[in-house]
Amino acid sequence: MSIYTRPILEVNLKNILENYKTLENISDSSVAAAVVKDDAYGLGAVEVSKYLYENGGCTNFFVAHGIEAARIRDGVGNSNIYVLQGMSDDNKDLFEKYKLIPVINSIEQFEFWKNNRVEKIRPVLHVDTGLNRLGFRVSDVESLTEADKSEFSYVMSHLACADEVSHFMNQYQLDRFNEVKKHFPNHKFSLSASDGVFLNNGFAQDMVRLGAALYGINTAPYRENQMKSVVEVKAPIIQIENLEVGQYVGYSATYRANSPRKIAIVSFGYGDGFFRSLSNVGKVWFENGSVNHEARVIGRVSMDNIICDVTHIPEDVLSNSLFAKILSDNYTLDDMGRDAGTISYEVLSRIGKNKRILKVIKQ
Amino acid sequence: MSIYTRPILEVNLKNILENYKTLENISDSSVAAAVVKDDAYGLGAVEVSKYLYENGGCTNFFVAHGIEAARIRDGVGNSNIYVLQGMSDDNKDLFEKYKLIPVINSIEQFEFWKNNRVEKIRPVLHVDTGLNRLGFRVSDVESLTEADKSEFSYVMSHLACADEVSHFMNQYQLDRFNEVKKHFPNHKFSLSASDGVFLNNGFAQDMVRLGAALYGINTAPYRENQMKSVVEVKAPIIQIENLEVGQYVGYSATYRANSPRKIAIVSFGYGDGFFRSLSNVGKVWFENGSVNHEARVIGRVSMDNIICDVTHIPEDVLSNSLFAKILSDNYTLDDMGRDAGTISYEVLSRIGKNKRILKVIKQ
Repeated sequence: MSIYTRPILEVNLKNILENYKTLENISDSSVAAAVVKDDAYGLGAVEVSKYLYENGGCTNFFVAHGIEAARIRDGVGNSNIYVLQGMSDDNKDLFEKYKLIPVINSIEQFEFWKNNRVEKIRPVLHVDTGLNRLGFRVSDVESLTEADKSEFSYVMSHLACADEVSHFMNQYQLDRFNEVKKHFPNHKFSLSASDGVFLNNGFAQDMVRLGAALYGINTAPYRENQMKSVVEVKAPIIQIENLEVGQYVGYSATYRANSPRKIAIVSFGYGDGFFRSLSNVGKVWFENGSVNHEARVIGRVSMDNIICDVTHIPEDVLSNSLFAKILSDNYTLDDMGRDAGTISYEVLSRIGKNKRILKVIKQ
Repeated sequence: MSIYTRPILEVNLKNILENYKTLENISDSSVAAAVVKDDAYGLGAVEVSKYLYENGGCTNFFVAHGIEAARIRDGVGNSNIYVLQGMSDDNKDLFEKYKLIPVINSIEQFEFWKNNRVEKIRPVLHVDTGLNRLGFRVSDVESLTEADKSEFSYVMSHLACADEVSHFMNQYQLDRFNEVKKHFPNHKFSLSASDGVFLNNGFAQDMVRLGAALYGINTAPYRENQMKSVVEVKAPIIQIENLEVGQYVGYSATYRANSPRKIAIVSFGYGDGFFRSLSNVGKVWFENGSVNHEARVIGRVSMDNIICDVTHIPEDVLSNSLFAKILSDNYTLDDMGRDAGTISYEVLSRIGKNKRILKVIKQ
């Protein structure tokens, strides 16, 4: 019998590519840009962007920070790399060196751009149409001269509620965006991320910015997920023990055995990105060929381990299982996000970030 | 006026050292080991362990995984490095190469050790006294022969409720540990992590394992924190805007302005470790010399940004602030943990893990 201790994250690049193609088709004639900010939601921006560039013909990439853009440049040839947080004193050198395209979010950032222009680069103007986050306010647009406007390649905005198909904000923001467009007769436009592409055709515009759905998240949760899952996480089962009635489990003794229980200690904890809010709530899976058994997390999630109730799982499955599945088609990012009281985006962003997870990139 | 976009995490090694000394004193004659698992709770295990070794005389380090031990070996001379998750097929080479000391958690791990012994290394026997996580069960100890026992240097256990000074589990576990000790007349013993050192002297035993409190966390929350804070996080203010009555903020429009508001968009989000559960709840600080202003997060926390209500903050403070403080003495790890519905341990573990944060190590 082997013993393992280190958790494993598998990233399936083929499925990311397949999701990219699916979304590109849905978005019709729009340019399909890939959003690889936050290290491609924790999966590895260098690997993901290079793969989409080489195999998917993707030549437009969005990141949040200049430093993120610099890291992916090597793998994506002369692709356009857009930097959402914009250009600033702490990253302007990168824009020159790596030929990055800033998104201009404010009048101040536009002034900054004018003082720090990069040759042959045309920035993107970001106009806020209702999210009230980053972006020119609609009224600010009127202050732009014709010369100002000619600086920009694209005008973009971002939707607040596009994961709810019938939310009033969608049409409200589209209407506002169409008003803004009137000021820019010679420009291209981008409005939707990967939730907006599932709305009606008016939302696709000239370029869609595909992030969450690329990575298998259901960004249209009002219907079945059409995306392939791209992450699988498994963690070693280190120990299996019995609990007697009255015994407590974990920190602060939040679980008490009211009947004899069998428990498995699994080498995965909040240090590895397993939300502590999954204490006494989350689930992992024990697999034996085609038969899969769900097991509930009991007691508090600790930094390095979770404890799972495996009382109901057949002995031969337990004794042959080296790993418990943390994320899989049986328990998806969306499932875990819901159980943790958050969204799959936050789960995904966190799960790949501990350097002690063995990351396996499958092509 | 400068513009910045990249968040900054400052790690104060001097204060970690000072906390180490404070805890070492409290623990009296016990050996003070430093726990640097999970990359020193996200702060950088290589830097922290090297600093404590060179400046604090610390020569005992605990990590969770073999790979974590391998990474710190270079900086800590011939120190003892203990691996809590134990020795396994996927890390046994590291034990030989880096002279690591396995913690033996189960009968199976002990068998594995016997088949894979490393010369001159004496493992630690972990006995579970009530946490019901990893460790030999007390009844398993009786199965050990005298020859078996002589393999081990230390016998350790771990407390479940040591952050609650009067919790019945503390004495229960101590009693059980003292029972176990009778089987090991020639060994050394370790029971407490950095919460246990604040309990009475019986808990310190021969070695304490100092983790959370080293990093400024209050592990004895029934009294004022005696630790110095060791992390400060600040994030750039990218934009300041006004909200009209009736305008919504952020994804899913969860905040609506019921009066005119002024908002600041700060370059920090859940991708950077700011819990999404702080949506409409969390706080950041705007500082102007000695005057500090608290501002509430409004709307949903997004991946790269939070939006803060700064209506009440004087214009001159806002116009002179390049950064908002995310973590500081005004808003500590413990404060953020409480507001996020979790504990400071989880906040800390997460906050240092995004590669886009600029990590500044202060010696």
